[in-house]
Amino acid sequence: MITSTSNQKVRQVVQWQNKAKERRKAGIFLAEGFKMLEEAPVDWIQEIYLSQDCLDKVKENALIWKKLLQKGYETVSEEVFHKMSDTQTPQGVLTVLNRPEYRLEELLKQEKSLFVVLEDLQDPGNLGTIVRTGEGAGITGVIMSSQTVDIFNPKVIRATMGSIYRVPFVYVENIAETIKSMQNAGVHTFAAHLKGEKYYDSFSFRESTAFLIGNEGNGLKKETADMADFYLKIPMEGKVESLNAAIATSLLMYEAHRQRQ
Amino acid sequence: MITSTSNQKVRQVVQWQNKAKERRKAGIFLAEGFKMLEEAPVDWIQEIYLSQDCLDKVKENALIWKKLLQKGYETVSEEVFHKMSDTQTPQGVLTVLNRPEYRLEELLKQEKSLFVVLEDLQDPGNLGTIVRTGEGAGITGVIMSSQTVDIFNPKVIRATMGSIYRVPFVYVENIAETIKSMQNAGVHTFAAHLKGEKYYDSFSFRESTAFLIGNEGNGLKKETADMADFYLKIPMEGKVESLNAAIATSLLMYEAHRQRQ
Repeated sequence: MITSTSNQKVRQVVQWQNKAKERRKAGIFLAEGFKMLEEAPVDWIQEIYLSQDCLDKVKENALIWKKLLQKGYETVSEEVFHKMSDTQTPQGVLTVLNRPEYRLEELLKQEKSLFVVLEDLQDPGNLGTIVRTGEGAGITGVIMSSQTVDIFNPKVIRATMGSIYRVPFVYVENIAETIKSMQNAGVHTFAAHLKGEKYYDSFSFRESTAFLIGNEGNGLKKETADMADFYLKIPMEGKVESLNAAIATSLLMYEAHRQRQ
Repeated sequence: MITSTSNQKVRQVVQWQNKAKERRKAGIFLAEGFKMLEEAPVDWIQEIYLSQDCLDKVKENALIWKKLLQKGYETVSEEVFHKMSDTQTPQGVLTVLNRPEYRLEELLKQEKSLFVVLEDLQDPGNLGTIVRTGEGAGITGVIMSSQTVDIFNPKVIRATMGSIYRVPFVYVENIAETIKSMQNAGVHTFAAHLKGEKYYDSFSFRESTAFLIGNEGNGLKKETADMADFYLKIPMEGKVESLNAAIATSLLMYEAHRQRQ
């Protein structure tokens, strides 16, 4: 059992919690909690850390226990686990996972695809929620500009509630080129934009569809919005000028889901 | 100009930022930022605090300037404003407002009402987002159990993006009695519940409608769910077991909006 916070492995995990660059260099991400270990694909798992108090609890969970036997684990003292955790009230389970890699070309081969394209989204909670709701709505991929918040940020991972394991995603350098590739692949692109004149539920999303969603504060860049095949808007009563990005995206994804039933 | 963080008024605001009980005792709430002052109903405003650096900026905003002249304001040093603010990067505008008071009986008199009933919701961001999206979807009121997070919590206020000024809300001691009153007033009550057998878009929300939404972790209490006229569910693909409470509520509210167009 590791009892010292200056242990090399502990210091490494703390660095990974805090530094996107170090996570990227190692090709890993971290996921905390029972559910996140339970749902983790076995071949993604690199290391598992358990707090001492947690060990008895995990033994009752057959799914997790099997993974522990298969992949091995380290126990650490409560104090050390607190240090390693990104949360205030840690569950006592921390998993180090290999990053999945998806390729845009592969994602574009799917029929009746349903994408969200996120330009410079900044809020980790929003991104995580979009991934989670996206799985629920049956999306086939999330495409993000390189300035979008790191999807492997611990707060994003937590907000995905496990959907990070199942929804494909890619970061792209050039969002304009990406939209062009999507259009060439037959994907209809819709910009959620204040200039939209028709409401979102008056379009058909039954064919391959991508929703372009802009940054929380500024919306889509003009160059990006200009590339869309269609502008759409979400009706808003009262004095509401915009909706939260995760809410707007969810309404669009679920409208597509509703139409595809 | 106030330059000392031990100034009585400053200490009072700091206490209000942190203590729901003190806010309640004083019958006030706090709102930070330009937009929140701009949209504040004049007769709700009790005090306005501006950081020194902010004073020139607000003079350019006619709407705000008019309010400042009408209601008066205090300037405080940057350091003092930082102390008073609930945010990391304060905008330099803080407004103390009287709490509005709404009565359930009044809300129930409206025709074609659209309510959300929140049982023990805990996350300030979720509540604020529901109020914001709710205004957009045209809801007529938010009804909350007494164990729901304080709607005057600074994080909730911020997430409402001004909708707190326009969406009526009430806290109720007894949620079962409240649901009964709603039903007696002709409101159809729908529980978002895993036991639901029909999808949300197969019900009609054209008549007076209330959506019952449970706590983030546990959903609706059995007693509460049992009182609903109907159970509904939101379809979920993949392995998603539930949606974020604000997302689920938003999908329901906007489905009602769509049907009422």
